[in-house]
Amino acid sequence: MRQGQLRRCARASKFPEFPRWQRCPAPGSPFEVRRHLAATWQAEFAAPAWLSPCTPFAGVHLSRLPPDMAEHAAASRLRLSGLCFLLQILIILLFAVLVRYSPEGSPGPCPPQLNCSRRSQDSAFQQPRFQDAHIQVLLSFGLLVVFLSRYGPGSAAIIILITAFTIQWAVLIQGMLFFFLNGKIYVGAQSMVSADFCTAAVLISTGAVLGRVNPVQMLLLALLEVTLCTLNEYILLGLMGVSDSGRSLTVHTFGAYFGLMVSRVLYQPHQDKRKREEQQDKGHQTDVFAVVGTIYLWIFWPSFTSTTTTVHHNAENWAVLNTYFSLVASTVSTFILSPVLYEESTPRMVQIQDATLAGVAVMGMAGEMLVTPFGALIAGLLVGLISPLGFRFFTPVLHSRLKIQDTCGVHNTHGLPGVLGALLGTLLTLLATADTHGHRLELVFPLVAQGSRTITDQALIQLGALPLTLLFATLGGFVTGTVLKIKVLRCSPDAQYKENTVLREVAEEGCDPCASGKEELGISTMV
Amino acid sequence: MRQGQLRRCARASKFPEFPRWQRCPAPGSPFEVRRHLAATWQAEFAAPAWLSPCTPFAGVHLSRLPPDMAEHAAASRLRLSGLCFLLQILIILLFAVLVRYSPEGSPGPCPPQLNCSRRSQDSAFQQPRFQDAHIQVLLSFGLLVVFLSRYGPGSAAIIILITAFTIQWAVLIQGMLFFFLNGKIYVGAQSMVSADFCTAAVLISTGAVLGRVNPVQMLLLALLEVTLCTLNEYILLGLMGVSDSGRSLTVHTFGAYFGLMVSRVLYQPHQDKRKREEQQDKGHQTDVFAVVGTIYLWIFWPSFTSTTTTVHHNAENWAVLNTYFSLVASTVSTFILSPVLYEESTPRMVQIQDATLAGVAVMGMAGEMLVTPFGALIAGLLVGLISPLGFRFFTPVLHSRLKIQDTCGVHNTHGLPGVLGALLGTLLTLLATADTHGHRLELVFPLVAQGSRTITDQALIQLGALPLTLLFATLGGFVTGTVLKIKVLRCSPDAQYKENTVLREVAEEGCDPCASGKEELGISTMV
Amino acid sequence: MRQGQLRRCARASKFPEFPRWQRCPAPGSPFEVRRHLAATWQAEFAAPAWLSPCTPFAGVHLSRLPPDMAEHAAASRLRLSGLCFLLQILIILLFAVLVRYSPEGSPGPCPPQLNCSRRSQDSAFQQPRFQDAHIQVLLSFGLLVVFLSRYGPGSAAIIILITAFTIQWAVLIQGMLFFFLNGKIYVGAQSMVSADFCTAAVLISTGAVLGRVNPVQMLLLALLEVTLCTLNEYILLGLMGVSDSGRSLTVHTFGAYFGLMVSRVLYQPHQDKRKREEQQDKGHQTDVFAVVGTIYLWIFWPSFTSTTTTVHHNAENWAVLNTYFSLVASTVSTFILSPVLYEESTPRMVQIQDATLAGVAVMGMAGEMLVTPFGALIAGLLVGLISPLGFRFFTPVLHSRLKIQDTCGVHNTHGLPGVLGALLGTLLTLLATADTHGHRLELVFPLVAQGSRTITDQALIQLGALPLTLLFATLGGFVTGTVLKIKVLRCSPDAQYKENTVLREVAEEGCDPCASGKEELGISTMV
Repeated sequence: MRQGQLRRCARASKFPEFPRWQRCPAPGSPFEVRRHLAATWQAEFAAPAWLSPCTPFAGVHLSRLPPDMAEHAAASRLRLSGLCFLLQILIILLFAVLVRYSPEGSPGPCPPQLNCSRRSQDSAFQQPRFQDAHIQVLLSFGLLVVFLSRYGPGSAAIIILITAFTIQWAVLIQGMLFFFLNGKIYVGAQSMVSADFCTAAVLISTGAVLGRVNPVQMLLLALLEVTLCTLNEYILLGLMGVSDSGRSLTVHTFGAYFGLMVSRVLYQPHQDKRKREEQQDKGHQTDVFAVVGTIYLWIFWPSFTSTTTTVHHNAENWAVLNTYFSLVASTVSTFILSPVLYEESTPRMVQIQDATLAGVAVMGMAGEMLVTPFGALIAGLLVGLISPLGFRFFTPVLHSRLKIQDTCGVHNTHGLPGVLGALLGTLLTLLATADTHGHRLELVFPLVAQGSRTITDQALIQLGALPLTLLFATLGGFVTGTVLKIKVLRCSPDAQYKENTVLREVAEEGCDPCASGKEELGISTMV
Repeated sequence: MRQGQLRRCARASKFPEFPRWQRCPAPGSPFEVRRHLAATWQAEFAAPAWLSPCTPFAGVHLSRLPPDMAEHAAASRLRLSGLCFLLQILIILLFAVLVRYSPEGSPGPCPPQLNCSRRSQDSAFQQPRFQDAHIQVLLSFGLLVVFLSRYGPGSAAIIILITAFTIQWAVLIQGMLFFFLNGKIYVGAQSMVSADFCTAAVLISTGAVLGRVNPVQMLLLALLEVTLCTLNEYILLGLMGVSDSGRSLTVHTFGAYFGLMVSRVLYQPHQDKRKREEQQDKGHQTDVFAVVGTIYLWIFWPSFTSTTTTVHHNAENWAVLNTYFSLVASTVSTFILSPVLYEESTPRMVQIQDATLAGVAVMGMAGEMLVTPFGALIAGLLVGLISPLGFRFFTPVLHSRLKIQDTCGVHNTHGLPGVLGALLGTLLTLLATADTHGHRLELVFPLVAQGSRTITDQALIQLGALPLTLLFATLGGFVTGTVLKIKVLRCSPDAQYKENTVLREVAEEGCDPCASGKEELGISTMV
Repeated sequence: MRQGQLRRCARASKFPEFPRWQRCPAPGSPFEVRRHLAATWQAEFAAPAWLSPCTPFAGVHLSRLPPDMAEHAAASRLRLSGLCFLLQILIILLFAVLVRYSPEGSPGPCPPQLNCSRRSQDSAFQQPRFQDAHIQVLLSFGLLVVFLSRYGPGSAAIIILITAFTIQWAVLIQGMLFFFLNGKIYVGAQSMVSADFCTAAVLISTGAVLGRVNPVQMLLLALLEVTLCTLNEYILLGLMGVSDSGRSLTVHTFGAYFGLMVSRVLYQPHQDKRKREEQQDKGHQTDVFAVVGTIYLWIFWPSFTSTTTTVHHNAENWAVLNTYFSLVASTVSTFILSPVLYEESTPRMVQIQDATLAGVAVMGMAGEMLVTPFGALIAGLLVGLISPLGFRFFTPVLHSRLKIQDTCGVHNTHGLPGVLGALLGTLLTLLATADTHGHRLELVFPLVAQGSRTITDQALIQLGALPLTLLFATLGGFVTGTVLKIKVLRCSPDAQYKENTVLREVAEEGCDPCASGKEELGISTMV
């Protein structure tokens, strides 16, 4: 250990600006140990510092950077600050011109295919429930809670910034397409829920690229994705009349493949080693967050799914039960597969959380259809088996062959389950009859109930929505990724190199070769 | 310190397979200190490793076990995995044969004494609220949140497995008795709530035996308890017409005494010392979880209680207020008693949490009766005094005389308050008159309101339900405990001995005799 | 480092009663390091020990105090215990004499100006929602969750005690003024919500004086503030007919300035240095709590605001949207200002949380008026800029010139935004017309709608309520502070001195001059 330590110290002494405790202490002294622990802490929690190759994230480090880098850091700080200011002013102006409160008692206008008559009919009764807290921001922040177990608390700030902008932007963009009348956008509870859905898709994509984009790039990604996601939603739900109340396609599938494509375009080979280290470590960090996230999903998601269904108090019942049974079964399947795949008797909490996510994602489209209780159990069991298999066998292939880095594994928790959910939804649409669904048919497939479409047509359209969404997501991801590669958004390689060096210094100290990584983690996983 | 350390190191070197950092370092080196801290961390968080004498829980340790033990561990891992798979397939088959969605607009059939007419009457109005998220899984997972302060995050995975199976099994078993019609079980929001109640009882029992059963035994315990608990519930609520909306008897009392009886049957004298150490430590571990659990109870429980009352929007009012006043007063009484019993100026959070639990458990049966606000305050104050007195004086007696180990102290937080709640409910039943209750009488005591029973008869039946539940719980616990002692469920004493040795090694290092326990805890309680 | 350490050790050896690990270890030994880490931990989490200059809080320390101090500590412990007991008995007696359940179907009587007719009219429909969990205790405990990031988990116990008493006392005092009929107080969901508002005001005041009052003083502060706050509320809402549904004035402004005035009266110059240290450290401690608190605010506050508006399902819509837009914009403004004010690229979570709080506080009075979406964004953006500016420039002035210590910065998160919210509300009242508000006018300004007041009168009255509240708060704070200075409530300076010495010893060890504070914090912020 002393060898490695001295080597690093020699390097560290190149920066005399560093505070004393970051320079070389007498080896073996308790002080040295404390320093080491602090370094471990930093290495752990400075992970978000890697978030941005350009803008150093973690404030802790900033004041200790050498002067030339500090200058650069200050510039990029102010760039983010200025961008936020300009964007916010722009949004306020757009709001002033365009956005008005939704008039009393009406849930706002909407395109003809979206069968709003049914909605407005119920609105008088549903209004109070709709305004319930859990619906307004649950989805977006729910995902944040859930993602914290992978992102770590340090990255929470930037995620909140993204969320704040995405919601405002989604209100504008979605309002243009869904709630636009006489040159004004009418906002109400419904538009907030739609905006939350968009935010969810953006957060999913963020999960794929996290660690390889800076905040400015992330902000741009959010703005572009909201636009494309809304367009996809409008085509699917508005024009094609697809039934996707739990958003298997428009949120889970779109968000995952969009993010993966952006990740592919931004692929940088020389970051490989670092990423791999990070990926090995992830999951150990924040078991407590994973426990909280899992409990959150269990408690809130089933009812959340139900609220976004076709807003009828009888139809909700099925969506709740299906989602609930699906997540129960997918949780069990983690316990079945984990001992076989890994040398662990019980799965780690983060695996359970992933399975739960997959279990709810698969019920997105099919939730309000006649899945039957045992069907939901089977679907949950299968998707709960597929998700960990994807982590074990598909993610490495994705990385080595397709050169797609997937920081938070969104392909296994959102992408695959979303696709499976869409296929399940198509199958169930094909099996739907007026006998089994009763008046529910009118709610789930209004165009079929009105007689303007046969059930086979509806099934074909549901099936066709899947490749369309995939196309949209990958094309959109490609365009967005290309835009993000524009030089002005990245920083000069020189500054980047220097800064990374410093951060790597600290990080390497945290990963002392003399001590096993586990040990270090043991200490800081106490979080 | 060096003496003890060397002695342990000598022992540890019997396992050369151990990674270097677990073997003897140069004393005094910073490396040694880090090793020590890591060991402390493990000792703290490896507590769930003690959960199972057979299957080593904490995945961290597994790969480091000596070869013969690793083999055994692999076998027991696969055994759990296989059991989960078989059980899940069995449940899916049973679901496919038996379970259907509840038909539209009806809350499902139920036995004649359960006065369903009233329920179905309100169902059209209550349906939307019933599907609210908080009701579906709140109870079971609420308890999980609350128990985390005692279980620690490491045991969360196994608790989630138990919950997932218990809910499915309870839907089947309870469906047989409560929601069965024409050979089919009709599931809906109501059956999910009932299943959650069962899960709560199972989680309470789990709290009593935690640390002395392996996951396979725990799974079996859950399946047996669900069956017995449902039977007890059917006899009390369905056949006898007992009014126990908040489940003082059927959940709190039954769960606690069932678990205590299983604990008695599984009593192993040679584990005494270890248990005592563990008991001393518990509570220091996870103050943060206790804070979260207490807040959770305060926020959600009062309204939760109200939802499970006789589902009428006027009657709920009382249950909310009574529960709320009771938990406020029981919280205060912790502050009154704690400085007298212990040498602490303010109680630890886990004590406040226990008092809060006791305060809500005592309002289970009486919640919807005419407790009056000051009556609820008095009941809360008394039960808040009794619960810590039980911890201080009764738990040691329970352990030394009756040979019952109570890991999480469920007797004081669920057993005693449940019994007191039943007695309070009986008293209030006796005092109930048509004048004071108004139309509420019909809701709380429908058989009295219908004239088929006098209020004295009702009070006698309420009183009689208490010994009946105790009898059921202890008999059921005895049978279950005897089943769990079957040899095939336990592991060979040899393997157990070896494994415990290893785990003890790590644990003992964590409890370095040279340093006070407090100090060690101080570091890892940072969680 | 050895120098400083030895000096402290010499001092520490004055207390041979201390356990061995608190005395001087061999420097450089790993044992010493562990001791040091433990001390760091204590210094961090013993912060609540500073809560009380008289009663040592943290139970950890108590058993290690020298005999004479232990005796004193025991006395003050029992004093708190006895006071709690007496107060609880008194409250139970008052409840027994005065408090009854609210009769069926009516939300309780109220003074004539409070336009109850409207409320009781809706009560049949609103009753079920009103009993929703989130409403009952959300506000008070929500604030607790949010404050934990500043208070730390150690102080949670005392905050819960304060909350438990405040709620009971507020039910009594508010019942006297708002829900009193024929010599009885009628409690129901509405009175619980009112009591929660009072608790919020008390918790805000507590945030200003935290660290300079002992539990007994804090209890007295709570009882006095509840009384004054209710009186202020009665004059504003009941007599003057001010529209302040989200309580910008009666909770945020009153609570903040009341607490600041108490803090001014209790000002002790010799505690300055310690406070300053503490203030520098705060915020680093508990980023995780800040993340949770921020998410909590985002999820629950908008709907919470809506529930406390004039209880009409159509009017709520605006309050939700306004609050939501305001907090989104104030969050963004943190990201705009933070890089300019501090040398950090992204704001710390606690800053984001403060901005969110400010964003909701500013929408208290104006929430249900016609803010318009872009107006809410502008208001949120401005208050989000003002709050961090206040922290940076006004808090030091407050401290050095006005000698007001503001532990948790309540002036910037509650005081200023509350005042601005009142001004905004006045402006919007002035702009209100029957055309723009429609039937909403009747709900927000019933007296205007009834024709008994012009809109200009209403605006003047709204404006006049601000200085009145400020006067009430400062006068009340002055009286309360003077009462708290009574000698019997403080302890003898001698005991205080000694105890502080001991606590300082530990604290100073935690703030080892050889190591930067950051480093130490790095370790224990892992929490």
